[in-house]
Amino acid sequence: MTRRVVLAYSGGHGSSAALKLLAEQADVIAVAVDFGAGDVDFCALRRRAVSEGAAEVVVVDAREEFANGYCLPALQANALVVDGHPLVASLARPLLAKHLGAVAREHDTQTVHPLTKARDVLVPNGIRVHARTPHLSTSRTLWGRSVGQWECTEDASVNLGVPDEVVVTFERGVPIAVDGETVRVAEAVQRLGHRAGAHGIGRFEGQVSHEAPGAAALIAAHRELEAITLDRDLARFKHGVDRRWAELVSDGLWVSPLRRPLDAFVRQAQESVSGEVRLVLHAGRAAAAGRHLRPVGRRYRPGTGQTPLGSTQHPNTQAS
Amino acid sequence: MTRRVVLAYSGGHGSSAALKLLAEQADVIAVAVDFGAGDVDFCALRRRAVSEGAAEVVVVDAREEFANGYCLPALQANALVVDGHPLVASLARPLLAKHLGAVAREHDTQTVHPLTKARDVLVPNGIRVHARTPHLSTSRTLWGRSVGQWECTEDASVNLGVPDEVVVTFERGVPIAVDGETVRVAEAVQRLGHRAGAHGIGRFEGQVSHEAPGAAALIAAHRELEAITLDRDLARFKHGVDRRWAELVSDGLWVSPLRRPLDAFVRQAQESVSGEVRLVLHAGRAAAAGRHLRPVGRRYRPGTGQTPLGSTQHPNTQAS
Amino acid sequence: MTRRVVLAYSGGHGSSAALKLLAEQADVIAVAVDFGAGDVDFCALRRRAVSEGAAEVVVVDAREEFANGYCLPALQANALVVDGHPLVASLARPLLAKHLGAVAREHDTQTVHPLTKARDVLVPNGIRVHARTPHLSTSRTLWGRSVGQWECTEDASVNLGVPDEVVVTFERGVPIAVDGETVRVAEAVQRLGHRAGAHGIGRFEGQVSHEAPGAAALIAAHRELEAITLDRDLARFKHGVDRRWAELVSDGLWVSPLRRPLDAFVRQAQESVSGEVRLVLHAGRAAAAGRHLRPVGRRYRPGTGQTPLGSTQHPNTQAS
Amino acid sequence: MTRRVVLAYSGGHGSSAALKLLAEQADVIAVAVDFGAGDVDFCALRRRAVSEGAAEVVVVDAREEFANGYCLPALQANALVVDGHPLVASLARPLLAKHLGAVAREHDTQTVHPLTKARDVLVPNGIRVHARTPHLSTSRTLWGRSVGQWECTEDASVNLGVPDEVVVTFERGVPIAVDGETVRVAEAVQRLGHRAGAHGIGRFEGQVSHEAPGAAALIAAHRELEAITLDRDLARFKHGVDRRWAELVSDGLWVSPLRRPLDAFVRQAQESVSGEVRLVLHAGRAAAAGRHLRPVGRRYRPGTGQTPLGSTQHPNTQAS
Repeated sequence: MTRRVVLAYSGGHGSSAALKLLAEQADVIAVAVDFGAGDVDFCALRRRAVSEGAAEVVVVDAREEFANGYCLPALQANALVVDGHPLVASLARPLLAKHLGAVAREHDTQTVHPLTKARDVLVPNGIRVHARTPHLSTSRTLWGRSVGQWECTEDASVNLGVPDEVVVTFERGVPIAVDGETVRVAEAVQRLGHRAGAHGIGRFEGQVSHEAPGAAALIAAHRELEAITLDRDLARFKHGVDRRWAELVSDGLWVSPLRRPLDAFVRQAQESVSGEVRLVLHAGRAAAAGRHLRPVGRRYRPGTGQTPLGSTQHPNTQAS
Repeated sequence: MTRRVVLAYSGGHGSSAALKLLAEQADVIAVAVDFGAGDVDFCALRRRAVSEGAAEVVVVDAREEFANGYCLPALQANALVVDGHPLVASLARPLLAKHLGAVAREHDTQTVHPLTKARDVLVPNGIRVHARTPHLSTSRTLWGRSVGQWECTEDASVNLGVPDEVVVTFERGVPIAVDGETVRVAEAVQRLGHRAGAHGIGRFEGQVSHEAPGAAALIAAHRELEAITLDRDLARFKHGVDRRWAELVSDGLWVSPLRRPLDAFVRQAQESVSGEVRLVLHAGRAAAAGRHLRPVGRRYRPGTGQTPLGSTQHPNTQAS
Repeated sequence: MTRRVVLAYSGGHGSSAALKLLAEQADVIAVAVDFGAGDVDFCALRRRAVSEGAAEVVVVDAREEFANGYCLPALQANALVVDGHPLVASLARPLLAKHLGAVAREHDTQTVHPLTKARDVLVPNGIRVHARTPHLSTSRTLWGRSVGQWECTEDASVNLGVPDEVVVTFERGVPIAVDGETVRVAEAVQRLGHRAGAHGIGRFEGQVSHEAPGAAALIAAHRELEAITLDRDLARFKHGVDRRWAELVSDGLWVSPLRRPLDAFVRQAQESVSGEVRLVLHAGRAAAAGRHLRPVGRRYRPGTGQTPLGSTQHPNTQAS
Repeated sequence: MTRRVVLAYSGGHGSSAALKLLAEQADVIAVAVDFGAGDVDFCALRRRAVSEGAAEVVVVDAREEFANGYCLPALQANALVVDGHPLVASLARPLLAKHLGAVAREHDTQTVHPLTKARDVLVPNGIRVHARTPHLSTSRTLWGRSVGQWECTEDASVNLGVPDEVVVTFERGVPIAVDGETVRVAEAVQRLGHRAGAHGIGRFEGQVSHEAPGAAALIAAHRELEAITLDRDLARFKHGVDRRWAELVSDGLWVSPLRRPLDAFVRQAQESVSGEVRLVLHAGRAAAAGRHLRPVGRRYRPGTGQTPLGSTQHPNTQAS
């Protein structure tokens, strides 16, 4: 009987080489997970995997799950790594591991390729991981990218452009509207990403460069709202909780028993984080136009007339 | 029309004097809250309040609410004040304030007496508090007492007695059985209190002396169980959360917006805190007989044969 | 005998009014403290104080003391307030209080005006403070300004200009050279301030706007250097210490017994923080050109050939 | 030329076996370090090492160094491990490693045996460590012991005895006198150890049992003194610093760059920790007789009449 192997397949050179190699010895179930980066043709990817020898191809649409279960907690924890950029690969990796494990269980195999860095997640769950296999890319997601060259941000030091303004509405820490139009979390990240990226926001140069315009702009807006809605003692303690959350996840410890209690804290702390933030996007920065901040009541609904954003006489312009 | 006043009434000299004084000028609604200290005759208290001029007497049985909503979070947060004793008056005070406020609202008045220290709780809720009125005692509760002379603990340095052993069973951080017999939280505190108090456990001498044998023994058992059920990173971070919880409550900041997120963390951290702890009560100390510790599964039910505590061959004696 | 009063004198409307008022009743010793903002004519100030009735004028040159004893610890603690801007008035206020107290002791009086906010500092030291007197400005210093209109920063969103580069050299956390030229701390703040301000760096809009280009650029450089010179465990713990330092000082608790131990931690943590940081100043941002970072040995001396910054073949360009 | 090897020699079976084995292949320099446990005959140990084949025997008297450089920081940080007992082996191990390294350098060799656990300390310093060699005991020191059977504490649950009282004097966190008699740190630990051990203080049962009567009593006294001499904010923050110190050292990370900054904090925090603590030693507990606590001035000198401890009219009995 032929051996069955689950392979994380990104379509890059590495995973193609791994697929060809493994297909000589086993039935390969190629798994491609969509984290919402938005620039992958999954039909072509599927055809290519088959042509390279995959016995089966599984495409997982993880966009909403990633947005709601991973990006949203990261946003509410204002999660930035030490150099100040949003988490990228470390946020998607545990979700990739989860889906690889699920496919492996469905197909009755415990052999999963490659995921060298995800082994910390897979091994404790009884999934065997082969070493020396190429590294799958979780570094291009809805939330951001680790990049060799800039892809989704303009160079603000070359072209300033005209400042853009955007209003983000939060309800208990969840971004629910952009410029008064109701959105899901994933949409909020995308829209902010396009508009912030056009002004060079969310570029982070370093040993590895990162690009995360939507995440950067949303975190900036969320922090501004927390600054006026959180009690001082809560804000100070939450800062330490936020740091620990980011450390844990960037250390690859998503499955740590500490994460859920930290999440519970952060979620509970969002109880009062409702309101609108007006961001000015320009010259590489997302700055809050402070006087437009306005916390709203518990059951705020955008677009119901409670916040007449487009009205002639803007109520927010009167006071800070 | 006569003015209406709500008075916290403990039956002590202070509240009697206040009642007589106020009754000359207003209709006094005397409120006596039972926090489970277990040694107050509320019928006599009621008669006495009436004889002292109360227009109405409200006795609130807050025993279960205090046990489940206040003592249990304190237990799960291992809450000790700086000198090492369990919280006493500061734990009951916000619950007293809550009930005084509720009675005031029911009786359509905003005037509440006395509660000098609870003013931090009442005032932000729109309840007026008169200064210079006697202080109501919240210092004798189910959880412990601030004492002038020892009431519920023996002197272990005089009489050692024979060591006692007791097994406490926790399910996700909630004490659910004592020696295999199912109990509610309030019962757990009482039973442990009687048995630990007999061995001088829970005495804390200081500027104000405290006595809290049940709380001290339960916290000791809970810490022992956390020591073997919590992940190291979680245990270390929780220590800081626990400290902040105790600081906040002992500072009189129960209503702080920081408390609920701390609670959420602590509660989520109890997910794995299930099992039995065998305590030896002797010579003023509650020591865990370590080798009888045993974490149990998620849906542990005491007395169902899963933990044959009374069996001849004790399964727990075999391994640590 | 005439009463003697010490008055903090800034030359603003408030302190002029106070001086005239007090001079009717007492001998006023007007004290003007130079915190290095660099735009005050102290000769004119002295003449004006005399003309307004001062019995004596004391001008204190606190520039070096402020730079070394206050700005430097703030730099080493990367001290930012919640909105992300450097500390301004709260950093100078305790030093003003110190000098007012010193002048008062020298002149054998315990009456000091005005300093409403500094009363927390003065009162515990036995100095009486009169209420309802105007507030002295400590909000224009070497380190930064609380401003009504921008004074020392250009608007980067209007005029981008050509990017500027500057190399800051630190020796154990102390900025000792700018572009290879040896400087004292105060000079480092000034030079960076001029160059960073020209690119709109260090503007912070909020309820009160702040401007602190030198502080912002130096803190950015210092953080970059710590990111590569501090051990991970140390960096993580220091982050919490830094936060507490900034909280304490912005809360007006410079004299808190907690500050010195925090300082001791921060200073000891600077042991390895030696090296150069090349900053690119442009478009409102001070970004480290990462590959030019280079930690140096214990006894680094700029300008001795160890760091041939101007040499044709730059050693730093070779590796990261 | 014969190979030269440095061997940590404790005289136990393990190190004897290792010595004999190594002596067949190399010149063995046996190193015995005295950590002040007080029950080892170093002359006999030296003879035995020679008889077992040692080419040279080095006995290091590390008692004062251990007391002042290791026990004292542990005392000032109130260092307890999670189960509540003082640090034992982890406190002595880095000092053993230091002396082994020093002997190796003096004798021009880089080969050190055995010290499996100390490899974290030795390897980064360029000292090679051979695996699979027996473990040297650092578990019997001045500060405490990891024990199979109780050695220096009585069983308080069997024999209560008559309560003992002892007065410990601290000067800036350093124990400088016991019952008014000037002592060095090592003497303070020894004296308290004898007297506290006689009352069963300092027994800690667990997977490994520990016995540390002197450390337990001194830490109890030090905490009591800190409780009345430290500012509240400082006490709260120091609690977190203390925890991190104990974590770091018990994790074997004495050489971590984080330790020195933590030490600097702790030491600076001792500035006000001067005074006397009267401990009652009885029934397994060291309890402070609270009303005898008395913080003293900066330049306190015991036995100079400033604290008439033996006088008929005790000044401390008057107030709390």
